[in-house]
Amino acid sequence: MLGSTHGTFTTDPRRAHVVACGELPPHTVHGRAVTADDLDVSGRPLYAGVPDLDRFFRPASVAVVGASDAEGRPNTGITRQLIAWAERVGARLHPVHPTRRSVYGITCFPSVADLPEQVDLAVLLVGDPLPVIEQLAEEKVRFAVAFASGFAETGEEGAAAQERLAAAVQGSGLRLLGPNTNLNAFEEFREDLEGPAIALITQSGHQGRPVFTMQELGVRLSHWAPTGNEADLETADFISYFAERPEVGAIACYVEGLKDGRAFLLAADRAARRGVPVVAVKVGRTETGARMAASHTGKLTGADAVVDAAMRQFGVIRVDGLDELQDTAACLARAREPKADGVVVYSISGGTGAHFSDLATEAGLTLPTLSAAKQAELHQWIPEHLNVSNPVDNGGHPVGDRRGRKIIDAILDDPEVGVLICPITGPFPPLSDKLAQDLVDAAEQTDKLVCVVWGSPLGTEDAYRTTLLGSSRVATFRTFANCITAVRAHLDHHRFTAHYRSPFDEAPRTPSPSFRKAQALMRPGQQLSEHAAKQLLRAYGIRVPREQLVTSAAAAVRAAGLVGYPVVMKASGAQLAHKTELGLVKIGLTSASQVRDAYRELTDIARYEGVDLDGILVCQMVERGVEMVVGVTHDPLFGPTVTVGLGGVLVEVLRDAAVRVPPFGEDQAKAMLSELRGRALLDGVRGAAPADIDALVEVVLRVQRMALELGDDIAELDINPLMVLPRGQGAVALDALAVCR
Amino acid sequence: MLGSTHGTFTTDPRRAHVVACGELPPHTVHGRAVTADDLDVSGRPLYAGVPDLDRFFRPASVAVVGASDAEGRPNTGITRQLIAWAERVGARLHPVHPTRRSVYGITCFPSVADLPEQVDLAVLLVGDPLPVIEQLAEEKVRFAVAFASGFAETGEEGAAAQERLAAAVQGSGLRLLGPNTNLNAFEEFREDLEGPAIALITQSGHQGRPVFTMQELGVRLSHWAPTGNEADLETADFISYFAERPEVGAIACYVEGLKDGRAFLLAADRAARRGVPVVAVKVGRTETGARMAASHTGKLTGADAVVDAAMRQFGVIRVDGLDELQDTAACLARAREPKADGVVVYSISGGTGAHFSDLATEAGLTLPTLSAAKQAELHQWIPEHLNVSNPVDNGGHPVGDRRGRKIIDAILDDPEVGVLICPITGPFPPLSDKLAQDLVDAAEQTDKLVCVVWGSPLGTEDAYRTTLLGSSRVATFRTFANCITAVRAHLDHHRFTAHYRSPFDEAPRTPSPSFRKAQALMRPGQQLSEHAAKQLLRAYGIRVPREQLVTSAAAAVRAAGLVGYPVVMKASGAQLAHKTELGLVKIGLTSASQVRDAYRELTDIARYEGVDLDGILVCQMVERGVEMVVGVTHDPLFGPTVTVGLGGVLVEVLRDAAVRVPPFGEDQAKAMLSELRGRALLDGVRGAAPADIDALVEVVLRVQRMALELGDDIAELDINPLMVLPRGQGAVALDALAVCR
Repeated sequence: MLGSTHGTFTTDPRRAHVVACGELPPHTVHGRAVTADDLDVSGRPLYAGVPDLDRFFRPASVAVVGASDAEGRPNTGITRQLIAWAERVGARLHPVHPTRRSVYGITCFPSVADLPEQVDLAVLLVGDPLPVIEQLAEEKVRFAVAFASGFAETGEEGAAAQERLAAAVQGSGLRLLGPNTNLNAFEEFREDLEGPAIALITQSGHQGRPVFTMQELGVRLSHWAPTGNEADLETADFISYFAERPEVGAIACYVEGLKDGRAFLLAADRAARRGVPVVAVKVGRTETGARMAASHTGKLTGADAVVDAAMRQFGVIRVDGLDELQDTAACLARAREPKADGVVVYSISGGTGAHFSDLATEAGLTLPTLSAAKQAELHQWIPEHLNVSNPVDNGGHPVGDRRGRKIIDAILDDPEVGVLICPITGPFPPLSDKLAQDLVDAAEQTDKLVCVVWGSPLGTEDAYRTTLLGSSRVATFRTFANCITAVRAHLDHHRFTAHYRSPFDEAPRTPSPSFRKAQALMRPGQQLSEHAAKQLLRAYGIRVPREQLVTSAAAAVRAAGLVGYPVVMKASGAQLAHKTELGLVKIGLTSASQVRDAYRELTDIARYEGVDLDGILVCQMVERGVEMVVGVTHDPLFGPTVTVGLGGVLVEVLRDAAVRVPPFGEDQAKAMLSELRGRALLDGVRGAAPADIDALVEVVLRVQRMALELGDDIAELDINPLMVLPRGQGAVALDALAVCR
Repeated sequence: MLGSTHGTFTTDPRRAHVVACGELPPHTVHGRAVTADDLDVSGRPLYAGVPDLDRFFRPASVAVVGASDAEGRPNTGITRQLIAWAERVGARLHPVHPTRRSVYGITCFPSVADLPEQVDLAVLLVGDPLPVIEQLAEEKVRFAVAFASGFAETGEEGAAAQERLAAAVQGSGLRLLGPNTNLNAFEEFREDLEGPAIALITQSGHQGRPVFTMQELGVRLSHWAPTGNEADLETADFISYFAERPEVGAIACYVEGLKDGRAFLLAADRAARRGVPVVAVKVGRTETGARMAASHTGKLTGADAVVDAAMRQFGVIRVDGLDELQDTAACLARAREPKADGVVVYSISGGTGAHFSDLATEAGLTLPTLSAAKQAELHQWIPEHLNVSNPVDNGGHPVGDRRGRKIIDAILDDPEVGVLICPITGPFPPLSDKLAQDLVDAAEQTDKLVCVVWGSPLGTEDAYRTTLLGSSRVATFRTFANCITAVRAHLDHHRFTAHYRSPFDEAPRTPSPSFRKAQALMRPGQQLSEHAAKQLLRAYGIRVPREQLVTSAAAAVRAAGLVGYPVVMKASGAQLAHKTELGLVKIGLTSASQVRDAYRELTDIARYEGVDLDGILVCQMVERGVEMVVGVTHDPLFGPTVTVGLGGVLVEVLRDAAVRVPPFGEDQAKAMLSELRGRALLDGVRGAAPADIDALVEVVLRVQRMALELGDDIAELDINPLMVLPRGQGAVALDALAVCR
């Protein structure tokens, strides 16, 4: 299993997509027929059922196809482990092999058709699982696991074989895990551990091992789903299932590539509604990483910024390292709902407190200054010259006697305090052993989160191994950074779920009245002229300047009179780009003669440059505001996405833009603006008036509507610039680009 | 010692500063008289000697003042530890106590004056060390350590007491460690470890403990300097000393506040010249952190961006966490000079390789694609379908036999490869034990850096504890992130030192001819008028527009004729700010009548706004370029600093600026530009011509000269905007602000 790589097909992101206003073909999600009511206007599902995987993880009966007890065969070891597992979970196990009569003394059957009962699960140890899959489907077996490799991870031929496997499963009622997976789901889990558990989903056994191993540090694990190539069951299925399990406190995922963007979002939505944190490593931060993951998984890795945004929209906590995955998932699984956002740092060393507080504050945690009354209370036990405002420095000695516990209780008793963090960088047993025990005892009696950072690089000390790791109520870390990451995730998660409203509940199911007008403007495969693109915007209620398209100088002068001086004149034509660079834009024209001259000059340049025009646009000149860009881009994994950025140099040089995957609500449109580094421009800098942010948010939401209704027929839509006028005056799309697919 | 906090005085950053063109007072650096030749033009030292601390760390004889063997007294334990230490290092120990005749059977002397020999070191366990310090100085004792707390860390009174201590030491020949320090320097170091060592400097014992504890993981430590309040000996002294010690491979520092900016830079310069890496945690990333550190150390924490830049200028590797400090210092201490920048990631799991490579690439490491020949070589031992281009995925099995070592050697043999990293996330003893041993064996036979990430959260496995940690040639990490940080630091460090030229060698020692002209323009305590500020720039050869200061409309028209139309007119006056906002700037004036009108309007507004003018500036209008800002700011720790940023919205909204501490060379001026996020603007975007970067660099260097010659007399100098014209056309300061101190 080591060294195996994972591959699935690149599935069409529109596999669930039907043309919004056409007929709806029958569609199923997890075997349940999806009706028109379950689709948004883009034809994507608004609902995904929870696959019932109880009998996968706890089958009553199991067939092992390809079972062996012959010395030295790889299947022999696997068979032995499966027998042990079946005993542990109380499942009846039936070996299947064409020639053997028994395996390890258990009666063996020549084929699946000969099994004595309808089994819940078949584990396939055969090189080519396809023929068996077909038999299993006939026998109404519910689940199969295919270990064989050599599928999508190896190239085109393997991908085709995997497609055949997927097709055999589709609609059969059988659900398949794999191919290219392993024994991880059937390992021995510790049953003696307390508290809410982590459920683990990984696309690589090797990468999942550290989280599994945390059981040896006292962290409870309930399940491990090694999804392999995801020909059928995918990460999203397991997220949905685990989110409904009462014993699961957090879901930890290691993802190389997502199979279906929408399925993932629906699963994350379910977890968010249920308040179950999902912590994920997702490979693909860099293009190199994405390419490598692709070469390993045969799966499309979406542009990383989009993945990042999608995860944030649905509250998935993304981390980079496996150590962060372990520490964050363990902390979130066990921590209760925070009573307050305030974090207090408590230490036996002033230096440690200052250092930790510095990093925590930089990471965005709130360290409130304790009240004068609370400080006075603490000074009963802590010498007067030590700082107890937060961080609380106890000077060491009070830890050694009864004052130690009193200090901790007094801090936890403060209503402003939600989290107590005690970094112990250097263990000094006479003090730190007692401190650890006090923290463990105090944590048992509070709902608040108590964290300890055990900074010794050894980790063999008793206070760490026995006292701290023996508690399921203290979150113990080895580094400042991981503690800070986990605490921030904990507070963010609860803030997020407390205000969460599923965007799927409010997503439009039927086209808006704008849609029919817009349809008439679409030209498949073509770039629309600026004028047509602006009409598309107008159809969706986005303001554009008054403008007329003219084809003579005289008409231009008439148009200028109607539009109102001063005017802007621009060449207009399909396929026309870089107008400004070509000199095809004239601004600030104030008289008929200037308009006539400009008309001649623009048509001359166009002729000289060999540019086809459909005319000259005479446009109202709009006063100055903040220049933004708003657009729709097609993401291969998630479909149409909406981007907003600061215009001009900020977006061009600094790529200062934020992206979201529809559907999203007004809250997310506003959050996009907060993500912009140049956001202050909208609030007004150097005495400039604040911009009309409400109007900008409205434009973003209208563009989202376009993305939903037209998105799959649009390769690219760009409003650049959108001039956002001072507050109360709206926003105007000065130029637009639309390319139809 | 736990819970102690550290305080020193806020020393005047100009303590080494003498007026550049006045008489030079005698000045000493570490007891050596500094002459005018050793000072730069700002009066700051260009040279710092290395204090000879051999007899501090390895004294021939030691006095313990306040020694005790009475049950239950805190000094008793300390005395016992000092006796044990003296035995280990072969020092004669003499207890000193006014009433005891012997301590632990060793003859005790009533006072320092009664000691039987001139001791190298006196350890002071007394509550008030001041009287003893005076005696020690008289007795020509070379070193003293003061454990007592209650000094600058406790407030003003303590700070005054500390100042008295410092004064007693100054010029006495005695060097003092502390007060508010501890036994750390005299702990038991492992003598059995191999390879270059880490020397440790910390301002907090608790914070230094994890690095010290690394000895138990097999990492050699040679010294620990717990600097406490730094009344005399400071971090810089120990950096200088350790940089000269042959056994020291890297210096690890934990710094809450720096005592003297220049002393720190000179020490870092020494380490850079010697090629000894300095890795530092410096508290103060946030204002909160800085405030907290200040409250703990009574020490000025310089603006963090300046600290950060200063460290980068002199190659100090700044890290955030103590775990990063440990891992980076240990790696750099032992790694040899890299032969190449290429990093190869080698793993038994494709997923692990993809994940690690993704993070490594994001962090800026170079992962070269291995040559076709090398890949063919690796495919002798690795199945054809596995990716060996880099990351190299071996699929697991080849590790178990003789192929394992061959693969490692083949990778290390590649001339493009400088570093081999093997992340092992899940130990699987049949494979990982052999893999670890192969890596250790291969590392013994190569000069290249071999890194392993042991990802299991346990860390109790034999392959980790015994095989990997038993090797001083393999750098072993516990997280991907720390491995990547250390490898990047290793490559950066060697790239830096390979090209390092000390700026102190080239710093100006005498004023330039510009200086006398500039002096005449300075007005202590005042803001100069725009016109005067520009004359200051001209004095230093920085181009300003042709301009004349006029006091009548007629003179304005004459001036416009001389300057050349079109012109810009601006109100000019000392204390005048926000000219544009007040409407006190008129641009693009093309005729005498416009100039006359503008003159009237500007003087009217000034009258209306109650602004004092010294006249109206009539300026040449400069064509468009890239707007920058260049300025001098006074940093409390480092003195005058030079800042360059992108003008307009970029610096105002995004604070897109870079800073440097003089003296620095042209390389650093260029590096400043590379740090700008909007740097692409200088290279030309959207078809704009590339800007005259050479001219910009020249302005930055001239402004540095101003900072050096005038900096301590200038509170603020700002060129905003500096218009950088297209390449070959120079740069012009369009506006300037200068405030004298």
